[in-house]
Amino acid sequence: MNSPKTLKGFRDILPKDARIRQHIIQSMKMIFERFGFDPLETPALEYASVLLGKYGDEADKLIYLFKDHGGRDVGMRYDQTIPLARIIAQHHYELPMPFKRYQIQPVWRAENTQKGRFREFLQCDIDIVGTNSPIADAEVIACALEIAKTLGFPSPKMHINDRALFDTLHLSKQEIIILDKLDKIGKDAVIDQLNGIGINGQERFETLERSKKTKRLIEICSFLELMGYVEGKDFIVDPFLARGLDYYTSAIFELKDPSYPQGSLAGGGRYDNLIGIFLGQSIPAVGIAFGFDRIIDALQIIQKTPSASSITHALVCIFSQDMIAESVAIVNTLRSHSIPTELYLDANAKLEKQLKYADKKGIPFALIQGPEEKRDGIMIIKRMTTKEQLRGTVDDAIRIISAHETT
Amino acid sequence: MNSPKTLKGFRDILPKDARIRQHIIQSMKMIFERFGFDPLETPALEYASVLLGKYGDEADKLIYLFKDHGGRDVGMRYDQTIPLARIIAQHHYELPMPFKRYQIQPVWRAENTQKGRFREFLQCDIDIVGTNSPIADAEVIACALEIAKTLGFPSPKMHINDRALFDTLHLSKQEIIILDKLDKIGKDAVIDQLNGIGINGQERFETLERSKKTKRLIEICSFLELMGYVEGKDFIVDPFLARGLDYYTSAIFELKDPSYPQGSLAGGGRYDNLIGIFLGQSIPAVGIAFGFDRIIDALQIIQKTPSASSITHALVCIFSQDMIAESVAIVNTLRSHSIPTELYLDANAKLEKQLKYADKKGIPFALIQGPEEKRDGIMIIKRMTTKEQLRGTVDDAIRIISAHETT
Repeated sequence: MNSPKTLKGFRDILPKDARIRQHIIQSMKMIFERFGFDPLETPALEYASVLLGKYGDEADKLIYLFKDHGGRDVGMRYDQTIPLARIIAQHHYELPMPFKRYQIQPVWRAENTQKGRFREFLQCDIDIVGTNSPIADAEVIACALEIAKTLGFPSPKMHINDRALFDTLHLSKQEIIILDKLDKIGKDAVIDQLNGIGINGQERFETLERSKKTKRLIEICSFLELMGYVEGKDFIVDPFLARGLDYYTSAIFELKDPSYPQGSLAGGGRYDNLIGIFLGQSIPAVGIAFGFDRIIDALQIIQKTPSASSITHALVCIFSQDMIAESVAIVNTLRSHSIPTELYLDANAKLEKQLKYADKKGIPFALIQGPEEKRDGIMIIKRMTTKEQLRGTVDDAIRIISAHETT
Repeated sequence: MNSPKTLKGFRDILPKDARIRQHIIQSMKMIFERFGFDPLETPALEYASVLLGKYGDEADKLIYLFKDHGGRDVGMRYDQTIPLARIIAQHHYELPMPFKRYQIQPVWRAENTQKGRFREFLQCDIDIVGTNSPIADAEVIACALEIAKTLGFPSPKMHINDRALFDTLHLSKQEIIILDKLDKIGKDAVIDQLNGIGINGQERFETLERSKKTKRLIEICSFLELMGYVEGKDFIVDPFLARGLDYYTSAIFELKDPSYPQGSLAGGGRYDNLIGIFLGQSIPAVGIAFGFDRIIDALQIIQKTPSASSITHALVCIFSQDMIAESVAIVNTLRSHSIPTELYLDANAKLEKQLKYADKKGIPFALIQGPEEKRDGIMIIKRMTTKEQLRGTVDDAIRIISAHETT
């Protein structure tokens, strides 16, 4: 077979991107855990019957389904919410309630790739299952705001609404779908489309603008204020926020940052009728999902991408075949100080080639000890970006490299 | 649908286990990176043609294969080596050579679950591609030894051999397969089985015992000694080490620890004819794979499992509806000191119920501030394991909880 390729919609994550992604995942995990969310993982494959009929007819068509070796109908993970519902049904005796979990795993959807969508992408979800308390809604919102701040977004703001408002105003599903487009198509077009389905768009707009906070929103907002968040700055009640998905039953939220008008960074809400689906009962739940690829895109645009330079801080070169022992000793010392260090892997390569390798990998320092330097108990410490060459002991090298790390 | 289940051979990883696994993965990543290995990820699905015919006929039957929505024959990731070979073919212009990568992803195999095998399990591999240098072999071995030490294995030892030895002695594939069983069935049974295929088992044994280190082994051992590892203690040349897999071409190794005689913790070797398979050329490579489930099993047996207690260090209780603000303030302060903290999520729950939640989740401290404590500027700091109750300020609480963390 010649020139093998990745499948359309699938990606290799090469080291540079893998490092950025891992850095963001680590930050998210840290904040999730600071808020008391526990990690959870579910299998890539489920019985097809667990998945089918839960996401709607259109989505069902996008699930990767096949027969396994035992003739069972199976499907690949499509989201992390239905597997969570299965977990709750299967393990509810052993799980503490309320159950707070985070989950960061890939999901697979046979999407139309022409829309720029991937068929394999990472989902990052937090959910609190088993309580209807508005404190839970506020905690989920607060956690998402902290993530955005930690990642470097300058002014993240949570837009909040309550689906109950739409019920009170007797808004149809069709109307909600039109309202949901406000960000994309603007007020005038929304009014036009509402008029188009026989509703007085202008009046509808004014009614919503005049609408008051629901009881749930009043409670959530007051908790957020107790937590130190400021209405108008950190969060805002937005009566036009609709969210596409059917399954939300109460509060809904979307995290935006003005520096990234292209879309929301996270979205979620309260959904009290989904998690109990396998138990045949109502189990309250609230959660939020981060758009991982969206966040990476946004961080790039606002120039806050975590440093993608090499993990390796120093390359120890091999001056010559009979100087290997000295190079290995330097590597050992640096690693014992937890400095990620590479030994050049060919004892016969010219120094020029070794330095080129450091350059190509973006390793910031190269260390070289020849016979002269050995005699003086020092080495050459070469800063790869500036080509500046210092001479110093291994302790000097450790100090210089560690100082670079923290800048 | 009633009582949904996981598929046979698939597992949910609930929080307690997920925490242990993440802890081990983090330790491995830290050491991998200290040795200059970079992260890499490949898709869960590949063209079936990329996978088929690479692992042998028996293995081909275990690959999860199906037709995707576009009618393409696809297969699920079966290992991480063939995808690495594809990556080298597809991206070789942008990758620095030698290419050192680590990869920690699940793979899927339709194994016979009666043998205690899982159909979804995590692989943890490091490989160095593009150099034939024995330094690379030594670096892979050293990295694996450091991982085992970091994870708490008392005396990890790398068993090393060279496939070239078998070639020199003209050992047949059948003989190698029998020798590979030495650990499991013992010397006498191996000699019997060798006799059974018409070979003088006793003589073969003595020949191997008398065999000398190959040139490659001499080089690897001398590098390991330069790195500070001691022959006999940290590594040993074991002429009976065979490794089942066909594709090794030179050095092979297996990591064992006497505290866990059940099996090896990692295994690998040099395989110079596999990575270039898609390019139609020979590309040297050496690597090692850790048995993740095996390591978890071993750590349990030697009682070195990382602490599985809750990530959450403190539960802040809510004394009463009108004391929520005080509880939220305590939560904020603890979290701002990076202490993973939960606020109890129901303002109307009895304290007893709140403490039960802390118990069930294994949260080590509960903090309670009622009106009296508020008046005195203090709170009750309850150590959940001993039920001991201290009284102190929020700074006291932070000090006590942080001290617990580090023990």
